[in-house]
Amino acid sequence: MRIRKSGSPRVDPVPAAGIAERYLAVRRATMALARPLSAEDCALQSMPDASPAKWHFAHTTWFFETFVLAGRAPAFDPAYRVLFNSYYESVGEKHPRAERGMLSRPGLEEVLAYRRHVDEAMPELLAREPDATLAAVIELGLHHEQQHQELILTDIKHLFSRNPAKPAYQKQWPLTPIRARKARWLPFAGGLCEIGHAGPGFAFDNEGPRHRVWLEPYEIASHPVTHGDFLDFIDDGGYRRPELWLSAGWDAVRARGWQAPEYWERIGSEWHTFTLHGRVAIDRNTPICHVSFFEAEAYARWAKARLPTEAEWEVAASGLPLGGNFLESGALHPLALREDPAPAAPAQAFGDVWEWTRSDYAPYPGYRPPPGAIGEYNGKFMCGQYVLRGGSCATPANHIRASYRNFFPPDARWQFSGLRLARG
Amino acid sequence: MRIRKSGSPRVDPVPAAGIAERYLAVRRATMALARPLSAEDCALQSMPDASPAKWHFAHTTWFFETFVLAGRAPAFDPAYRVLFNSYYESVGEKHPRAERGMLSRPGLEEVLAYRRHVDEAMPELLAREPDATLAAVIELGLHHEQQHQELILTDIKHLFSRNPAKPAYQKQWPLTPIRARKARWLPFAGGLCEIGHAGPGFAFDNEGPRHRVWLEPYEIASHPVTHGDFLDFIDDGGYRRPELWLSAGWDAVRARGWQAPEYWERIGSEWHTFTLHGRVAIDRNTPICHVSFFEAEAYARWAKARLPTEAEWEVAASGLPLGGNFLESGALHPLALREDPAPAAPAQAFGDVWEWTRSDYAPYPGYRPPPGAIGEYNGKFMCGQYVLRGGSCATPANHIRASYRNFFPPDARWQFSGLRLARG
Amino acid sequence: MRIRKSGSPRVDPVPAAGIAERYLAVRRATMALARPLSAEDCALQSMPDASPAKWHFAHTTWFFETFVLAGRAPAFDPAYRVLFNSYYESVGEKHPRAERGMLSRPGLEEVLAYRRHVDEAMPELLAREPDATLAAVIELGLHHEQQHQELILTDIKHLFSRNPAKPAYQKQWPLTPIRARKARWLPFAGGLCEIGHAGPGFAFDNEGPRHRVWLEPYEIASHPVTHGDFLDFIDDGGYRRPELWLSAGWDAVRARGWQAPEYWERIGSEWHTFTLHGRVAIDRNTPICHVSFFEAEAYARWAKARLPTEAEWEVAASGLPLGGNFLESGALHPLALREDPAPAAPAQAFGDVWEWTRSDYAPYPGYRPPPGAIGEYNGKFMCGQYVLRGGSCATPANHIRASYRNFFPPDARWQFSGLRLARG
Amino acid sequence: MRIRKSGSPRVDPVPAAGIAERYLAVRRATMALARPLSAEDCALQSMPDASPAKWHFAHTTWFFETFVLAGRAPAFDPAYRVLFNSYYESVGEKHPRAERGMLSRPGLEEVLAYRRHVDEAMPELLAREPDATLAAVIELGLHHEQQHQELILTDIKHLFSRNPAKPAYQKQWPLTPIRARKARWLPFAGGLCEIGHAGPGFAFDNEGPRHRVWLEPYEIASHPVTHGDFLDFIDDGGYRRPELWLSAGWDAVRARGWQAPEYWERIGSEWHTFTLHGRVAIDRNTPICHVSFFEAEAYARWAKARLPTEAEWEVAASGLPLGGNFLESGALHPLALREDPAPAAPAQAFGDVWEWTRSDYAPYPGYRPPPGAIGEYNGKFMCGQYVLRGGSCATPANHIRASYRNFFPPDARWQFSGLRLARG
Repeated sequence: MRIRKSGSPRVDPVPAAGIAERYLAVRRATMALARPLSAEDCALQSMPDASPAKWHFAHTTWFFETFVLAGRAPAFDPAYRVLFNSYYESVGEKHPRAERGMLSRPGLEEVLAYRRHVDEAMPELLAREPDATLAAVIELGLHHEQQHQELILTDIKHLFSRNPAKPAYQKQWPLTPIRARKARWLPFAGGLCEIGHAGPGFAFDNEGPRHRVWLEPYEIASHPVTHGDFLDFIDDGGYRRPELWLSAGWDAVRARGWQAPEYWERIGSEWHTFTLHGRVAIDRNTPICHVSFFEAEAYARWAKARLPTEAEWEVAASGLPLGGNFLESGALHPLALREDPAPAAPAQAFGDVWEWTRSDYAPYPGYRPPPGAIGEYNGKFMCGQYVLRGGSCATPANHIRASYRNFFPPDARWQFSGLRLARG
Repeated sequence: MRIRKSGSPRVDPVPAAGIAERYLAVRRATMALARPLSAEDCALQSMPDASPAKWHFAHTTWFFETFVLAGRAPAFDPAYRVLFNSYYESVGEKHPRAERGMLSRPGLEEVLAYRRHVDEAMPELLAREPDATLAAVIELGLHHEQQHQELILTDIKHLFSRNPAKPAYQKQWPLTPIRARKARWLPFAGGLCEIGHAGPGFAFDNEGPRHRVWLEPYEIASHPVTHGDFLDFIDDGGYRRPELWLSAGWDAVRARGWQAPEYWERIGSEWHTFTLHGRVAIDRNTPICHVSFFEAEAYARWAKARLPTEAEWEVAASGLPLGGNFLESGALHPLALREDPAPAAPAQAFGDVWEWTRSDYAPYPGYRPPPGAIGEYNGKFMCGQYVLRGGSCATPANHIRASYRNFFPPDARWQFSGLRLARG
Repeated sequence: MRIRKSGSPRVDPVPAAGIAERYLAVRRATMALARPLSAEDCALQSMPDASPAKWHFAHTTWFFETFVLAGRAPAFDPAYRVLFNSYYESVGEKHPRAERGMLSRPGLEEVLAYRRHVDEAMPELLAREPDATLAAVIELGLHHEQQHQELILTDIKHLFSRNPAKPAYQKQWPLTPIRARKARWLPFAGGLCEIGHAGPGFAFDNEGPRHRVWLEPYEIASHPVTHGDFLDFIDDGGYRRPELWLSAGWDAVRARGWQAPEYWERIGSEWHTFTLHGRVAIDRNTPICHVSFFEAEAYARWAKARLPTEAEWEVAASGLPLGGNFLESGALHPLALREDPAPAAPAQAFGDVWEWTRSDYAPYPGYRPPPGAIGEYNGKFMCGQYVLRGGSCATPANHIRASYRNFFPPDARWQFSGLRLARG
Repeated sequence: MRIRKSGSPRVDPVPAAGIAERYLAVRRATMALARPLSAEDCALQSMPDASPAKWHFAHTTWFFETFVLAGRAPAFDPAYRVLFNSYYESVGEKHPRAERGMLSRPGLEEVLAYRRHVDEAMPELLAREPDATLAAVIELGLHHEQQHQELILTDIKHLFSRNPAKPAYQKQWPLTPIRARKARWLPFAGGLCEIGHAGPGFAFDNEGPRHRVWLEPYEIASHPVTHGDFLDFIDDGGYRRPELWLSAGWDAVRARGWQAPEYWERIGSEWHTFTLHGRVAIDRNTPICHVSFFEAEAYARWAKARLPTEAEWEVAASGLPLGGNFLESGALHPLALREDPAPAAPAQAFGDVWEWTRSDYAPYPGYRPPPGAIGEYNGKFMCGQYVLRGGSCATPANHIRASYRNFFPPDARWQFSGLRLARG
């Protein structure tokens, strides 16, 4: 019995062209992600950290309606101002995050109508060549929506994992296995370096100001840690040896009974994992994902290495081409590297998995959030989270940069989060 | 935009005729309740005590597939045996109750197909004149499904109340207001009485054996306590005076910040309540509902009376006609009495609101649960709950009896639960 | 190193004589219980349900100061009115129950001075032949203090059990083991019986009014269930078979990981338990104790029997002599019966262990709590608890009666609570 | 009635002389802190973060017995190895932190005997001129004990604050009030600086290695923020304005109902606070204390400034004399500055209050914890905590350095924690 629309969620790349084209391309890409989902799939919330897909569809629209259209077009529904506000205290009341899954209404169709309503109002505005301030907010809204594209996938993955039937988001597995590559150490001289965003392209406020940092010489691994590497850690008692863990990490291991990364399940003598293609056997040669900062940090200690700081990571990744396994590949899972990597450059720095760094998410020297509600976008979360770099297999390709700072609490595991070792 | 099927959820009465006709009528009545609901409405779970409507549709079907069809027809989906088992340990594993809202799949359409699958297999069985044991299980399954019809409504009401838009299940309000009637005391002699079910009709196991009880003389009120009566209690500081409450009740008042029955909301100076027709002003003349045992018991103390025991209630209600405001009336809310009541008989004993009694839910002398999984139906819940009698505006008309024992924990408020006073 | 006063906590029997003598005897008996305890032992609170011994010493004194001395003597310390109020809302504010263990001050010595202060003021009052109302309150205060004597022991036992050193309250073990006795069924005719207190002696308000109940014929076991009986239940998978348990009981088993009664610990292949004499091996022939209502009820089902109702228990115990293993024996643990029991009478009905009944703690017909704060003593707890009968090895000998109703929630295990089977 | 030893807890300075003298001086200083406390005061635990004083007395002794005496002397009691292990996984089992308040035994006298036992064994060892490794561990043990001296005071303060009688640890208040001083901005040039410990004196492992950091030019306030400054923040709606707070901080404000720093209480129209001298009115001119990182950070935003990084703080404090209001002053509360401060140097950098920095507690470049159990001392806590600098009025005078890194979670308030502003 067919209850869901057929077809794959294939997402087309966003063109580099004008903002009007990009607006439509980004909005279309979001809708492409909805293709394999039923209205019911889009309505459920599997944990307070995750949101229903329907909420993501509406909230990204709310962003444009609230911050761009503002008084320029009639509100689709005044109640949405509260309902789809995520965390902007300056905008006013908001529906509680943990109750996003209590809303069977508005239904998916109404939310899609809301999207169309806003999408019809925007082009006129875009055609009139918006002033710089407004253009900056639109640009922010597009990058904001791309962030939510990734969350739609990770949140649906989490929801589906709670279903005993382990449904697949799309059925394209098995991906061709590729042989392993042994990681090598790549040396960096350090010294007085610069990090942070500068220049004409878009960046979030938290990526600046560009500033100087002093780095001692260090080495960084040529490849991310793989599932196979991590299996060795597990087999060596990694989850049973407190001396490998930060104290808070060891508390998490015991309190939650962690014995493997999120989504892993031992069937007979073999480990499996849950993917957006359903349950599959572990492929040793792909980058490890769905590990917390705690697990990444413990793994690094076990491997007699450490996590890089975010400055070390950024200096190493600066100047690398931004290619990789992103959302548009359709793999929706980290892959082993297929081509030969450049000899002295980190491979897979972009795409596949977000890489935990040892840096807490803090303001750069001289950082000031912009005034108004937009100032709540990033700055107020600078506490208790750790920085991840490089994007993942669920990140849109044109959404990543060497200076991009993602951040999650140290126990978060439902993102495509992995790691790369450093030493020195 | 229309996203839900139009039409009212009008439920037709179940004929007294043969079991095959009754099977179809009960099953159709359940589906009638689904009419105003979207797939998303049916998928969400608003609290661990409540279940998604979809789950109710499936579980009542599971009951027939598991206990009646058993090996007689191929399973629709073997996974459903676990997924839609409510609490039958003897049947095996069950999906955790608090996670019923994690299942976007099977979707509503699959669940409806499941219902059709079983509904197609049953008639053949019913035509073959089932033996007495099987007939008893089918009968139980029909009464079981009628219990869930009431829960579908109370659970949807709870879900909709969590939505800031306060959606209506059906829009038929306002119901015609009727003038108040003052309750009188009706005397009963007590002595050696008999309670419990006996005779040829259906009854749940917990209604027997019929047995003798000794009652001192008592009086019982001619009508249930009304919204107006309860407003007087609130205005007299009812929720602020610990001396009116059981200790555990007062703990609940403070821990949950109770200031009025469930679903009440003060707008300006006036109290409103949430109904299946949306938010409405309080009608003083209708029976109070959505009060816990604690609130009923405190009200009775304030009114210098008490709750009746279940034996007192049953003796008073024995022999009364079983008419009243039930599910089939379509009111879906307690109503003020329209006709003149019989002079010496309790009015509104059946329908409108379940009436809390002072009796904990315990086994009658000589009670033995039946062997096998069916034995888990009632007996194992005989602890920590209080008995309610008489059915409500959400109870199917042919589902009630004087001996019927409903039961809920003393803090439950989401049922149509009210009270009638007693003294002596 | 000696840090605690030497000597045993031997408690002398309270004389039947005049109230002045009894006052002094009861007060002395409380102090005798303090003998093996350090100031630190008396200050700690091991769970919200249990109180520090120091608090018991002070609260029982507060009872006399508040309800008897009232304005008749200067308050020892006005702050104590709040600090040592247990649950009397009519008296005003009270220090939160769960924070009784936050009070290092007043220290034990101040609390003992408080006791002396009140003990010096009372005799004068007692000498002046108090009027009937006051005499009744004093009498209540003495029985109240005897209830707390039992709690002092059960609360200290719980505290000591949390200490890895498993300290002994007194070192008098081993008690002489006695051979087993097989329980027989004793028949009772039932019919129209009377239960509840009547007559000149003291009783709590909840024991009346005396009233008629109808009982079907039943049988009751000649002896309480023993540790050996309960071991058989465990060995037969008692804690692993959901079909033996009430639903709420099975939830408790899983949520708390119960595998045996409170204080049991398996060392090697043998079960041990923690007693007021330290850790000891299980003695099969002694009455089982420290089981919850849930465990008692499950055991009874496993034994193809049931718990008696409180009316059945009281009718069976009426007229029996009130002898048994009480606080004054100094055993502080249930014992196997030493003498030959009377042939047709229940043995060990009084003392050794409180016996769970199947009756929830509810008001008797016609029950009215007395006016004022004293009315809060019993009535407001009549919800969610089950009745226990007969007293235990920690109950003062002259504190028990056939009509005495003790009550605890169904999951409570830290009292000396056991059971006796019934059937029919 | 006298139940506690008289006399003040005056702590004498620790001599700079030989290690044997210093050992005795530190151990004596701990005991001096016990002087105003009863055995009951020393036994109670007021929250999982705080420990009973008795536990501190024992644990600091355990450190010497476990890491210094080891096999060299018979164990006082083998059970103490587990009982008084704080968090050393390599040493083996440990009594759960949250249950330190369940131990009435060993009593205070036994714990004092334990101290004497170890103090008698140590001198012999110290006399024999320990080798460098052992000397380093002894040195660490002395600094460890000094850390616990501060915790004894802050934990007792917390315990006493939970007592409605608000007892005083010592009665020496009022401290002489001093006029306010307005803070000035002191400029620092930044550039390539060095921080971290180097040289012959003692430092914890987390203070090294000394390393280079690049700092942009910055300014730092001449004085810590005062109680008066913080009152202005409160009066300006500081606790009601989400835009001033980090998101996690605002969550804490709402979840815990914070309206002022820990220990504050509004009596009539005036704010009071609880001190080790009892409850006192707020003195505007003294440094603010008992604020969390969240409150410090919000205050700084309100003041249009920011918290310094730990590198900025250390560079500013380098070379300053280590004088200030420490434990030995006996004030046990932050004081307003009495002398004229040096013109261009930060005043009150040492003593009075620990100053929150904006730096999370992370490893310095090249940091490696020492091998073995001692390696658990600091490194494993480097996650989710923020660095505080400078010591407080409860810190022993010779225990502080410019490179000293204290650390607490961002919501901790029971330490003497305040702040100093920075900008640029």
